[in-house]
Amino acid sequence: MIIKNIKITIEYDGTGFSGWQVQPDKRTVQQEIETALKSLLGYEVKIIGAGRTDAGVHALGQVANFKINSDIPVDAFKFGLKKYLPDDIIVLNAEQVQLNFNSRRDAVKRTYRYVLSRKKRAIGRNYSWMPLFTFDPELMKKAVRFLLGEHDFSSFCKVKSNTGDCLSTVFRADIIEEEEYIIFEIEAIRFFHNMIRIIVGTLLEVGRGTIDIDDFNNILNNRDRTKAGPTVPPKGLFLVNVEYPKNKFNPEEK
Amino acid sequence: MIIKNIKITIEYDGTGFSGWQVQPDKRTVQQEIETALKSLLGYEVKIIGAGRTDAGVHALGQVANFKINSDIPVDAFKFGLKKYLPDDIIVLNAEQVQLNFNSRRDAVKRTYRYVLSRKKRAIGRNYSWMPLFTFDPELMKKAVRFLLGEHDFSSFCKVKSNTGDCLSTVFRADIIEEEEYIIFEIEAIRFFHNMIRIIVGTLLEVGRGTIDIDDFNNILNNRDRTKAGPTVPPKGLFLVNVEYPKNKFNPEEK
Repeated sequence: MIIKNIKITIEYDGTGFSGWQVQPDKRTVQQEIETALKSLLGYEVKIIGAGRTDAGVHALGQVANFKINSDIPVDAFKFGLKKYLPDDIIVLNAEQVQLNFNSRRDAVKRTYRYVLSRKKRAIGRNYSWMPLFTFDPELMKKAVRFLLGEHDFSSFCKVKSNTGDCLSTVFRADIIEEEEYIIFEIEAIRFFHNMIRIIVGTLLEVGRGTIDIDDFNNILNNRDRTKAGPTVPPKGLFLVNVEYPKNKFNPEEK
Repeated sequence: MIIKNIKITIEYDGTGFSGWQVQPDKRTVQQEIETALKSLLGYEVKIIGAGRTDAGVHALGQVANFKINSDIPVDAFKFGLKKYLPDDIIVLNAEQVQLNFNSRRDAVKRTYRYVLSRKKRAIGRNYSWMPLFTFDPELMKKAVRFLLGEHDFSSFCKVKSNTGDCLSTVFRADIIEEEEYIIFEIEAIRFFHNMIRIIVGTLLEVGRGTIDIDDFNNILNNRDRTKAGPTVPPKGLFLVNVEYPKNKFNPEEK
């Protein structure tokens, strides 16, 4: 037997989960995957997820890893695991990676998407959120530019942290208009608890005219959560993908 | 007080319903709307729906009508009713129509859509169905042409009926290919129980090569349900809209 480190990429519908992380007496994504792995392998494994998504938040490309000491082929985690998983979790890909790979620590870029709806819908209602006020996406497009680059995002962190604790670098931040949806996409090194949902809540205040574009920049620079907008609901949020340095995927090194 | 006949257009997510029609101890769309109307109006009204969709079948534009004897403005059914409705039902429109309008009897065209998925998904998994075999949509495109025009659709009716009982006219039948989905759309005067789901099941047999294109035509012409394909799951099916003759919308005639 040799120890292998397996990286899986997963899609899930967050609607029926109390988030990613295992919690007593709650249905969580991590718990469901660990239970399925136990059924497949016959022993318990703990998995590490790249992003600890909250209740109701979805993933199109969450990444997790876990170590096994079986000769079971890596494809078993793509094709064999699915019969033990509920239909709101799909394993998109499975690959063997080097032993020191850690999906959370080694991630260099995470992409999230928040979907705002212009129209109240029944179909797909768990995959977007409709604000009850009107807003101008053009104003939001001007404000998102201030997010680019390295900042202390304390203004957009759930709990007021010490200065410097919410440091990240944003590579891309876009407002994309579609017929029925306004989509906010953001790529950054890391995100803090509720950060995207608070950014979207603040951008919407810019869009409806209660916060000026320059004030959005001031709120960011002043690192004061109390000046930012409300936290929007989780159901519009998707973890789109997680990226790693290429050299982390060489399974040769044991 | 004058009696008014109200026509409503509704969207619903069929996932959580045992179909349209009221059944004892089941959650149905008709029941939820009748309960909401009772809360709004203070008295019971019975509604008539254009299509009695099965459990799991969705609607983007179901039509229903009901009679009231209140002076309540028609907009109340669009804006006031929503606070009494669950979030898987949305009233898209409400208008007053002439007293003899009946949403089921007067419909002249119904459009349905069946969404086949090429890829297993967690997000939106209740809005399409993925066959477990591969199939060629080009073959299906050739077969759908035979559906056009007036036919006795007994081959595609749930229960074997007497010849002539399943008579309808198909105005349009298309296979539309999108990146991830293959969509079957059909417009006809009327549809019979499970008809679209059996047509799709049979078209898929053509697509996978177990039924020839000409045999598809023979199955239709021979009116023999036992030769047709299986009934596909309800979750891919959407009632898209229902059309009426224009003169049925004049509320002047009391």
